[in-house]
Formats: sequence, C-alpha cells, structure tokens
Amino acid sequence: MKIIILGGDGFCGWATSLHLAARGHDVTIVDNLVRRRADEELGVQSLTPIRELTERLEAWRETGNRPIAFEEMDVAKDYDALEALFRRIGPDAIVHFAEQRAAPYSMKSPWHKRYTVDNNVNATSAVLCAMVEACPDAHLVHLGTMGVYGYGKTKGMMIPEGYIDATLRSGGAEANVEILYPVDPGSIYHMTKTLDQLLFLYYAKNDGLRVTDLHQGIVWGTSTPETELDERLVNRFDYDGDYGTVLNRFLAQAAIGHPLTVHGTGGQTRAFIHIRDTVRCIELAIGSGPARGERVKIMNQMTETHRVRDLAQMISDKTGVPVELMENPRKEAPENELVVANDSLLKLGLDPTKLSQGLLDEVVNVAGRYADRIDTGRIVCSSRWVRPEPVQPPLAAE
Amino acid sequence: MKIIILGGDGFCGWATSLHLAARGHDVTIVDNLVRRRADEELGVQSLTPIRELTERLEAWRETGNRPIAFEEMDVAKDYDALEALFRRIGPDAIVHFAEQRAAPYSMKSPWHKRYTVDNNVNATSAVLCAMVEACPDAHLVHLGTMGVYGYGKTKGMMIPEGYIDATLRSGGAEANVEILYPVDPGSIYHMTKTLDQLLFLYYAKNDGLRVTDLHQGIVWGTSTPETELDERLVNRFDYDGDYGTVLNRFLAQAAIGHPLTVHGTGGQTRAFIHIRDTVRCIELAIGSGPARGERVKIMNQMTETHRVRDLAQMISDKTGVPVELMENPRKEAPENELVVANDSLLKLGLDPTKLSQGLLDEVVNVAGRYADRIDTGRIVCSSRWVRPEPVQPPLAAE
Repeated sequence: MKIIILGGDGFCGWATSLHLAARGHDVTIVDNLVRRRADEELGVQSLTPIRELTERLEAWRETGNRPIAFEEMDVAKDYDALEALFRRIGPDAIVHFAEQRAAPYSMKSPWHKRYTVDNNVNATSAVLCAMVEACPDAHLVHLGTMGVYGYGKTKGMMIPEGYIDATLRSGGAEANVEILYPVDPGSIYHMTKTLDQLLFLYYAKNDGLRVTDLHQGIVWGTSTPETELDERLVNRFDYDGDYGTVLNRFLAQAAIGHPLTVHGTGGQTRAFIHIRDTVRCIELAIGSGPARGERVKIMNQMTETHRVRDLAQMISDKTGVPVELMENPRKEAPENELVVANDSLLKLGLDPTKLSQGLLDEVVNVAGRYADRIDTGRIVCSSRWVRPEPVQPPLAAE
Repeated sequence: MKIIILGGDGFCGWATSLHLAARGHDVTIVDNLVRRRADEELGVQSLTPIRELTERLEAWRETGNRPIAFEEMDVAKDYDALEALFRRIGPDAIVHFAEQRAAPYSMKSPWHKRYTVDNNVNATSAVLCAMVEACPDAHLVHLGTMGVYGYGKTKGMMIPEGYIDATLRSGGAEANVEILYPVDPGSIYHMTKTLDQLLFLYYAKNDGLRVTDLHQGIVWGTSTPETELDERLVNRFDYDGDYGTVLNRFLAQAAIGHPLTVHGTGGQTRAFIHIRDTVRCIELAIGSGPARGERVKIMNQMTETHRVRDLAQMISDKTGVPVELMENPRKEAPENELVVANDSLLKLGLDPTKLSQGLLDEVVNVAGRYADRIDTGRIVCSSRWVRPEPVQPPLAAE
C-alpha cells in the first residue's frame, strides 16, 4: 500500500513509519520538524540521542528494508504542496499525527494555547480538504485521544468506543439514537481533538470520506523491533514537564534517584498503551477502515488502566526511589474511575504488551542507560491550567 | 456599559452597534473590514448603498447619539492588539460577530473552506484567550446559529435551547445527564459554529469565563430605527448567491420580476428573525449572562419558522412573481420539520416582528427602492456542497 505519514518524525510517527515500511508498504513521511524546534524552544532534549531525520532515513535504507521517502512540509500551512503530494502519490492511506500533542505545552501561555488550536485544527482541515480534491477514496487514520471523553463524568460507566446509546428527551417527545460520546476535554490540547472529531463527522457525511479516529491512551515504551535495528533509528523519549508523560517522568526520576513526583493525590486513573502496540494498532486500523459514506470509525487504542499513584508505586518497588506528592498543576477531579471498552483492536488481533512485562526493560535499557543525559531542572511540569496571578486591573477607560 | 463589538461593520454588527450606542452604552467596533473585501472578491455589492465605515461613524456622531469608537484589527490574527484593547477598555461585554458567516461562501473552494475554519476558530480562540488575560469578568455574547442542531434528525422533537436531557447507556449502566445537543452541521460554516461551542464549553469550565451563545435563525429585514436616522447609516442587504439568504434572494428576484428560485422541493423548514429583533436580543442577552463558573448560556434567537416554498409563495402572492423550482446545490434532506424552543428571549421581553407584519415593507422600501442596483447574474447560488466533476485520477506513483 501507498501510505503517507503526516508527522512521521515524531514519537509515534517515527515508530509507525518504520513498522509499516518493514511490512513492505511504500511510506512517505511528511513533517515540518516542528517537534525538534519545540525541544529547542523549551531548552530540553530527548533522553535518547535521536538523530536528524536525514540520518535516520539513511540508516533505515541501510537495514535493507523498503526505503522511506520524506517531504518537508507544514501540513497546516502549505496547502497547495499537500494537495499536490496527495495527487502525485495517490495514497491508499494517510496517517495523521501532524498535531501538537502535549497538554502542558498547550497550557503554557496565550501563544501556546492559540498555536495548538491553530496548528491542530488547520492541519486536520487541510488534510480533509485535500483528500476531497485529490484522493477521495483514501483512508484517513487519525490519532485522537482518550481525553476527548474527559474523566469521571459518568462514574462507574464504561467508556464506549466513540459512540454511546442515548435516549434524548425534549418537549414531551423522546428519541433513541447513537451519538458521539459527549466531550469534556481537560486541556486546550485535548479540546483540539474534540474539534477534530467534528471535522471528521462533517467530511464523512458531506463528502463520504473514509476516516478512522483512534482514541489513544498515554503511550509508554520507547523501542519497537524496528527502532532497535540500528542505534541511529532510536526513538525519542521525552521526560520534560511539557512533553514527558507521567510514566516517563517517573522513569527519569527513578534513574537519577529523584523522588517520583505525583500530582495531587495520584488518584487520577489513566489509560496506557506500549509504543509497540501503537504501531500495530495503526497497521490494524489501516486495514479495517469504513467504506465511503459510512460514519467515522472510532476505536479506543489503549490496553490497560492504572491509577497514577499505583504506577508510581510500581516503579518505586522496582527501583527503591520514594514517591512524593506535589500540588496538581492541572484543573481536574482529584480521583476518577476509568473503565474503557477496547474490544475493536483486540478483535482485530492486537496482543498487548502490558506494563507488568515491559516496565523493567524501560527502567534499565532506556532511563538507566541514558541517565547522564537527564537535565534534572526540566522534569517537573511548569505549566498551570488556571492563571495563577491576580489579573492586572484594566486601566481606566476614557 | 463598555461594550466591544467584534465584527461591528457587518450586517448584524452594524445594526447592533447603533442600537447599543443609542441606549447610551460606550461602544467600540473592532473590524478588519473583510466583509467589504469579500464583496469585491465576488464582484457583488450590497443592494443598499452602504457607506465607508468612517462615513457611517461620522453620520452617527451627527445624530447626537453617543459616538462609536473604531479599531481596525483582524481578531483572528492580531492577538497582541486585541489583548491590549481588552486591557485598555476593560469591557463589561464583548459581542462576537467576527466570523465568516455564509454557508455558500464556505463551500466555494478548498481555499474558502479552509479560510472559514481558520478565521472563525482562530477568532474565537483569540477572544477567549485574551479575556482570560485581560478581562476575565467580562461577558462574551456570541452569535451562533440554529444550524448547529442540523435539521430533521429527531423528527417531531422540539429543538431545545442548546442542552438536551439524555439517558446515556454503556456496559449495562446508565446515567441521566443534560448534554449539549448532538450537532449535525450542514456546511463548513455551520461546522465552525459547532467548534466554537466546544471552545466556549472548555473556557467556561477551565477559566470560569462568562459566555452566552445565541443560536440564531436566518435574519431578514434591513433597517432598525437607528439605521433609518440618516441614509448614510443604511444597513447592508445581501442578495447574491453567497451572502444573500433565501428571503433576500426572493425579494431581489421579485423586485426585478425574475422567478423566485426555490432549491429542491422547497420543503426545507428554516427559522427566521428580523434584524430589529436581533439587536434587541443582543441587548437582552448582554444583561442576562451567566455568573463566572456557570456553564455557557445558550438561547435560540429566532421568532418563527417557515417552509421555503411557503415563503416563496408569500412573496409571490404579494408581488405576482412566479415560483420556480431548481436543483438543490446543498446536500440536505429535501424536507424537514423544525420546532424550536425560544422561551428564553421571549421571557426576557422580546416582542417579535413577524414576517406577516414586516415583509411588505421590505418588498417596497428596500428591494423595490434599489431594484436598479440588482446584478441579475449574481442572484443564484453557484457554490456546490459536493464536488461535481469526477476527480482527476492520481498520476502513477514512482
């Protein structure tokens, strides 16, 4: 198959590109390399020493696998180039990772809030627009997030895969319908994925585009069989307060003997998936898309849930590093239940890598191996969900 | 009150600005004058001879009413200026009309689709962001659309004001909740208003911003008591295929004796409101906003519903001009019911101007008076909802 990977230089995108190329697909990466510029902006770097994309692609070629092409392009801004690329390649599938994907980064400042909305919405808008013009039969596979559902709203109720059965009541009448799960995003970043959902809903309805939206949990793990083929193929491992997710923070802290910082009570329950399973899920999703005219297919891409404090304890048990509670920078419920339906991908053949199996490997072979590269001042989240200072009073008008 | 009107040079914005200034409020218009440039792009002009904004504002000053200030600014792009303005004025209310508002315009081409998404989402994102920084106690009043609900989905069920009672069922459990009415937008333009809703939901929850979203029907009528004070204050009347709404199209056609072109069967039912009622609704909404931390207040801003073919017949009866059916350029149900709850604004004191009272005045004093300005080639909609030509096959890859 001819597959375009938008955002193929990022954490999920890179591993997915290699996985699909290893299976013999013609893969083209489209990326504007902005994730690397965000590292520079934040003064941080991947714990693992990732290489320039050109070096990565050359190393991949040397493995003897099918080579991967690359087009440098801003998906949100370079519309004519994007449409021309879609026309030239005639892709069977387009995998869309080309979005700013960190909740804390999206909350750093007014610029970061607006950038995240601008980039993510315009990227999705451009992709859908160009598909209508250039490749209306292609299958779009988008990385969404479990965060569109919000947490803790319907206590004790299983979160279904995108749609939920509902009885609506108004003016004495009622109707039984299946609706998009009512959203409750917890950050600007998560909100952009709820906007994406409505763009997909519209384009699937109006233009019959084929769209699969994968609502992914927190991805952990670093390596896949392909990234391990050559050290120049190493995947990124983010541990900083903006891009590092909770598990990576704990791993980095454990590697240098820093207490594991748990936000609030640590009673937040989150969904997780290993990067090895992410790439497999994308492959499975590509092969099982809706037909033209069918509604958007939504699958929950996660394999297990854990409370944050239990996660910290697991790592503390393996490493002896203590757990420390700190004030929660996020605005969220202190505790939440999370029960998630994830039958679709399991039925398609996903065989999950669980934390209980893979965690020790991460502790030793990633966090431990590169511990000397850790910048200890960058581990803790500095973004705040709610403006902390009192607002400056407006100057007297007139 | 100190009130900022974003998009105050447009059709609803201009009439609202005058109405609020006439009631003694300190009004500042913010506009980038893009609506006038769209006229140039499309090669059309308002049926009524609208004046440059500076001339409008001078004429208003001469009426002896409280003068209106003006800041030329692109709300979606000039963030620093917007935040500085909010800080300087310290508004009690911000009325947000600064969005591309025509469904056919939003469907003209990939550029128009992307422009509408880009402009509308970034404008709303910037306004909310700047409010958090500069005036978190201000009340945002936004012009939404009845189109967020879609039409005909829940046949025979009254469309409530924004929220609907629902029983959700998943995994054997159920929950009774009030949710945002599940959206079903019929064009890119309408979709952007469904995105706005989620931005409001998020900022009301996370930052406690005070937001009222008015889901407006099709606005008809041209004049308000204020625009009639001086001919230089005349409001715009759009009759072209992009910006002219269905009633204006019929009025323009009637004025020149052209058959009244009804799309499809004319069985579409639409909601309507007179511009005089729009400006009054905005005033009522400003005075009845939610408190900080309360959810977004949503009101349906419409006063009556009509089937399009009945509307055509009403005008045909008054003018003798025949009705003609044509192919529907939109993708929509050929017939739909529409029963809308609009109690909130009526309870606040709205006294509607109905079509049966005001229509003849429009026929004679607007369409008839300026009939010699009608460009007959511009009346019919040229936008198509679905790409008409077969898609060019992609060139062979490799």
